[in-house]
Amino acid sequence: MSFTLQQNQLLSPLLGDEEITGLFSVEADLAAMQSFEVALAIAQAKEGFISREAAQTIEENIGQFKPNYEKLGLGMARDGISVPALVTQLKEQVSPNIHFGATSQDAIDTSFMLRGKATFLILLSRLENIFEHLDTLDAAFGTNKLMARTRMQAALQFTVADRISTWSTGIRESVAALKSCRFPVQFGGPIGLLIEFGDRSYALKADLAERLGLEVQEQNWHASRGNIVAMANACSHITGALGKFGIDFCLMAQDDFSELKFTGSGTSSVMKHKQNPIQAEALVTLARFNATLVSGVHQSLVHEQERSGAAWTLEWMLLPQMIVAAGASTRIAIQLLNDTTAIGLEP
Amino acid sequence: MSFTLQQNQLLSPLLGDEEITGLFSVEADLAAMQSFEVALAIAQAKEGFISREAAQTIEENIGQFKPNYEKLGLGMARDGISVPALVTQLKEQVSPNIHFGATSQDAIDTSFMLRGKATFLILLSRLENIFEHLDTLDAAFGTNKLMARTRMQAALQFTVADRISTWSTGIRESVAALKSCRFPVQFGGPIGLLIEFGDRSYALKADLAERLGLEVQEQNWHASRGNIVAMANACSHITGALGKFGIDFCLMAQDDFSELKFTGSGTSSVMKHKQNPIQAEALVTLARFNATLVSGVHQSLVHEQERSGAAWTLEWMLLPQMIVAAGASTRIAIQLLNDTTAIGLEP
Amino acid sequence: MSFTLQQNQLLSPLLGDEEITGLFSVEADLAAMQSFEVALAIAQAKEGFISREAAQTIEENIGQFKPNYEKLGLGMARDGISVPALVTQLKEQVSPNIHFGATSQDAIDTSFMLRGKATFLILLSRLENIFEHLDTLDAAFGTNKLMARTRMQAALQFTVADRISTWSTGIRESVAALKSCRFPVQFGGPIGLLIEFGDRSYALKADLAERLGLEVQEQNWHASRGNIVAMANACSHITGALGKFGIDFCLMAQDDFSELKFTGSGTSSVMKHKQNPIQAEALVTLARFNATLVSGVHQSLVHEQERSGAAWTLEWMLLPQMIVAAGASTRIAIQLLNDTTAIGLEP
Amino acid sequence: MSFTLQQNQLLSPLLGDEEITGLFSVEADLAAMQSFEVALAIAQAKEGFISREAAQTIEENIGQFKPNYEKLGLGMARDGISVPALVTQLKEQVSPNIHFGATSQDAIDTSFMLRGKATFLILLSRLENIFEHLDTLDAAFGTNKLMARTRMQAALQFTVADRISTWSTGIRESVAALKSCRFPVQFGGPIGLLIEFGDRSYALKADLAERLGLEVQEQNWHASRGNIVAMANACSHITGALGKFGIDFCLMAQDDFSELKFTGSGTSSVMKHKQNPIQAEALVTLARFNATLVSGVHQSLVHEQERSGAAWTLEWMLLPQMIVAAGASTRIAIQLLNDTTAIGLEP
Repeated sequence: MSFTLQQNQLLSPLLGDEEITGLFSVEADLAAMQSFEVALAIAQAKEGFISREAAQTIEENIGQFKPNYEKLGLGMARDGISVPALVTQLKEQVSPNIHFGATSQDAIDTSFMLRGKATFLILLSRLENIFEHLDTLDAAFGTNKLMARTRMQAALQFTVADRISTWSTGIRESVAALKSCRFPVQFGGPIGLLIEFGDRSYALKADLAERLGLEVQEQNWHASRGNIVAMANACSHITGALGKFGIDFCLMAQDDFSELKFTGSGTSSVMKHKQNPIQAEALVTLARFNATLVSGVHQSLVHEQERSGAAWTLEWMLLPQMIVAAGASTRIAIQLLNDTTAIGLEP
Repeated sequence: MSFTLQQNQLLSPLLGDEEITGLFSVEADLAAMQSFEVALAIAQAKEGFISREAAQTIEENIGQFKPNYEKLGLGMARDGISVPALVTQLKEQVSPNIHFGATSQDAIDTSFMLRGKATFLILLSRLENIFEHLDTLDAAFGTNKLMARTRMQAALQFTVADRISTWSTGIRESVAALKSCRFPVQFGGPIGLLIEFGDRSYALKADLAERLGLEVQEQNWHASRGNIVAMANACSHITGALGKFGIDFCLMAQDDFSELKFTGSGTSSVMKHKQNPIQAEALVTLARFNATLVSGVHQSLVHEQERSGAAWTLEWMLLPQMIVAAGASTRIAIQLLNDTTAIGLEP
Repeated sequence: MSFTLQQNQLLSPLLGDEEITGLFSVEADLAAMQSFEVALAIAQAKEGFISREAAQTIEENIGQFKPNYEKLGLGMARDGISVPALVTQLKEQVSPNIHFGATSQDAIDTSFMLRGKATFLILLSRLENIFEHLDTLDAAFGTNKLMARTRMQAALQFTVADRISTWSTGIRESVAALKSCRFPVQFGGPIGLLIEFGDRSYALKADLAERLGLEVQEQNWHASRGNIVAMANACSHITGALGKFGIDFCLMAQDDFSELKFTGSGTSSVMKHKQNPIQAEALVTLARFNATLVSGVHQSLVHEQERSGAAWTLEWMLLPQMIVAAGASTRIAIQLLNDTTAIGLEP
Repeated sequence: MSFTLQQNQLLSPLLGDEEITGLFSVEADLAAMQSFEVALAIAQAKEGFISREAAQTIEENIGQFKPNYEKLGLGMARDGISVPALVTQLKEQVSPNIHFGATSQDAIDTSFMLRGKATFLILLSRLENIFEHLDTLDAAFGTNKLMARTRMQAALQFTVADRISTWSTGIRESVAALKSCRFPVQFGGPIGLLIEFGDRSYALKADLAERLGLEVQEQNWHASRGNIVAMANACSHITGALGKFGIDFCLMAQDDFSELKFTGSGTSSVMKHKQNPIQAEALVTLARFNATLVSGVHQSLVHEQERSGAAWTLEWMLLPQMIVAAGASTRIAIQLLNDTTAIGLEP
């Protein structure tokens, strides 16, 4: 699963996230699938399912592997996944013992989990950064007066600290959603049974998971996509919580309100006097984008039989985009908080 | 929040859920809001914010309260919420001390949480029931042969137990999503500050929560809707996991497969020989329905300022429907498992 | 298809539409299905497929038909549609010759088209009414000064007429979407072929359509749901165009802007000074509601084989709600335009 | 608007569309914006708003324009659009008279319309091609017997021609949706008024439109996004109609049915005997993808004031992807029809 959004040279500076997009490049996908194959070989050698020599060969040769991208593309068009073509190349260039007992979905889902986990660590760290920025703003402007507004009408006066506290509450909820995500290895073989490994199958899977820094689950999740849905939910929750901050920012920055001052703002091609809250608007856009896409990931829970090409492929088209959007949202929020030079009125 | 779906006399027998729909009737909503007001009065009396006599009056008189529905409706059309009109009636009929320091959203959100929690206990219990039925089927037919199918093609043979295990895994994931839902009281007053209650505000809120059997959160969540989104996610996860069971059921019941036999099936107005897997199709429908609606609940995370009429009202139009759909889905799945008389081929 | 939303006594005064909800009541659905059966019988008698006496009996007896709702509900739960149970009752009470050569979907889809067409005439008329109100506002305040705003920042000054013109443009686009909807009769028999009627099948269908005031299409559309999608698109376009008006209204009504004055506004249970733009917020809510649900109607285009219970039923759960939301949106917009007492600043 | 999907080297061979993706590349976007600027200059010279020499200079120099991509990217991040930075470069390298009286949105929306129109011609042509393929299959296998199936159960026997006719009906409906799309020029200046051009503004716009092969509309559509929504609807309709064909293909190709034979199918990395209907599954995926994304485009109808950065940017993130998905869907359907070697049973 390496679908990348926001690669566009013109749009990515606004809506993209270089660091996270990198994790969903073709190269990163292939690298993660190779990590899976190597860890699998080592674990299998330890349990005696392939020879120690075979595992060593795989571990040593993998660095020299040169994917033939054209053949991978042809394989994708024919097989709906690149793994059969990739495994053919790996068997030729690396070792015939690679990918033993595994199915394509094992490599693809595990590759996604490896990069999903890496992403989520980045997101968590950025969200912590956002809390620090909010604390800084609170320290600087928390006691300033601000009009509380309900139903888009002035309600009663409160303080900047009160508004910041609402932002923090919402973002903290999204952190909890993020922390509820699981990143288990996928290993089930063609129909999920790991028949070749008999009563050692769970031990083998657990060892594989540990080598990859992933969790292990009793059952395969080829057709049970709760881990995927949880990630989609968390990404949309993050963009939603930051979208709430974004719309508040836009409203506070309205000329007639003057509740907020910021630098680094957008300019107009014609109206030079304007200072547009571009980044705050982008937070709203990203929130609505993910709130749209999350629907499709839930649709893909209707995953027929042991493996649904239709439902599984839909995940690839949606989830990486949602993750990049969540990344972009955190990146932009940090920038926006950095660029904020005043909130509220001095008391 | 008492929007009821599936009230339709003709459609509710298929797509509705009488028990859960009842929890989202106007009457149940009003009853829950009254419970909130009574518990609030008692907690406030204990803390000395209103007199013990006032609280006692409220507790005693609430049973005689007769809502004037016409005026509530007029209030709704004017105010966008029924609470101002309701509080006027409560103050007249019950006590002028009712609703002290509270805002409409406190009553509405808490009422929803009370009924949300009741619903989720029902859902959990039904999901347990589903696991029992799956165990029964497993005991009866688990060793039968079944063709594992990937990408809608026969893959390799496995057993009925293997297929049932996949269903269980998916449903168990949805149970985890359900268990991650929080049901906190809402109590913040007009702009979330509970100013009237000074440093006793948290203690008061905690006491209120305990009397209602709800959780307490440090901050108000007037504009931080993570609890709402978590519920929507869980409902869609449940219908999605059961939708996967539903589509598998439909595919197994295909004439040419004969992998599954069932009773209680649908008939055709013309083709008398047909046995339609109506309930299994309905599981797919309900999954796609909730996967559609979940998007709107995520959209409502973009909740501007201290209270957004636009975003909040959208929750009312979506979430109760999603909850009823989740209820209907569990009800139908139990029926379908009950009606299943054979799976797979004897070994 | 008679799923009614917004039946809720408390919510419907704000979010419902009594006139259009009535068209989607169980009674209206049954009445429309009876109209279909009567027109079918008359057309069939004319072509000689049933006797003139039979048709006359059907026409005369239909007025006395008393549906047994309990049995219809049981039929729904069993068959996924109420028509088999309904036809049984009609054959008993009215005539055994009723429903000849038809399938349940013919009655259900045609009933929906009859009520869809009635709804759309109401919507068109209300949209005309909205244009009149906009003209009235334009006449009264068109030359007033108003700040044009882009990206939520003051741009350059223009006039109220300019802003009104934008609203009109958007609403006119939604009228075009509405006018592109087709309302054809559905008549195909069990598998769409109308075998019983040989080379007279198209003539029969055309005659049936004419009697019902519907269009006729060469092919049955049992599994080709473009007519349904077009209606969903139009409803969401209407609520979207009026949602644009709603958000502009909310922004203009902000205290610090004072660009708009209105009466009939919402009150707060606590903050008596507030004048909330409840109806304008509701327009935004309804826009986001329909923009959410339209997704599910598009999902139901994936309608397998000759009739998909899963996809077809999903339409019932979504489209009537969307139509009522479109109705509510037009109703609210008219009210809001009526209640608007000033826009912009006198020049 | 040049957001490109399916650029991924591994996924695009399955899910992408090289021809249409090319139309949404950065280069194609910049080229189309330059066409807009040139046509605008020529039209303005004709009407006397800029000198003929200025227009000639623009026309002659545009071919030598070398965009500085880095500065465009920086502009995008700062301004939310690349046009201010682009215009700066164009004024420096081409002529200071370029972009006179226009606003960024004029260039961006018109660029999108130019490429939208080009895409839609491609789609129309491919859909015609699909009808030809269906005719070919009908000629070859139309009289073969096939089981009609409703609610996933065998109904009655009909012929392959009957099933093909249903496919055609659905696809023809999507062609009608496509043909209802309008491709007007966008030209309104900063706040939509074209003040600089007085009573010649419509004539100028009409001339500009004609030079670009686009339509002209009386009003600007900066904040009235019906043209965008119509395109999104049509794209989702196309993928939906072909998704119906895709799911039917998958079901017919099931081993136990043997109703359809095809070549060019997918292989499994492990189960060599399998013949997976990869392309048919992809049609279902693309249908569900567009049915998901269409929701967000409808959400963006809530476009506040004269220009909403939040709503407009959301279109960029969704619509190009939907168009590419529609393209991929037509490409795959043609391939699939080509690869179909038998349908139904000989009579």
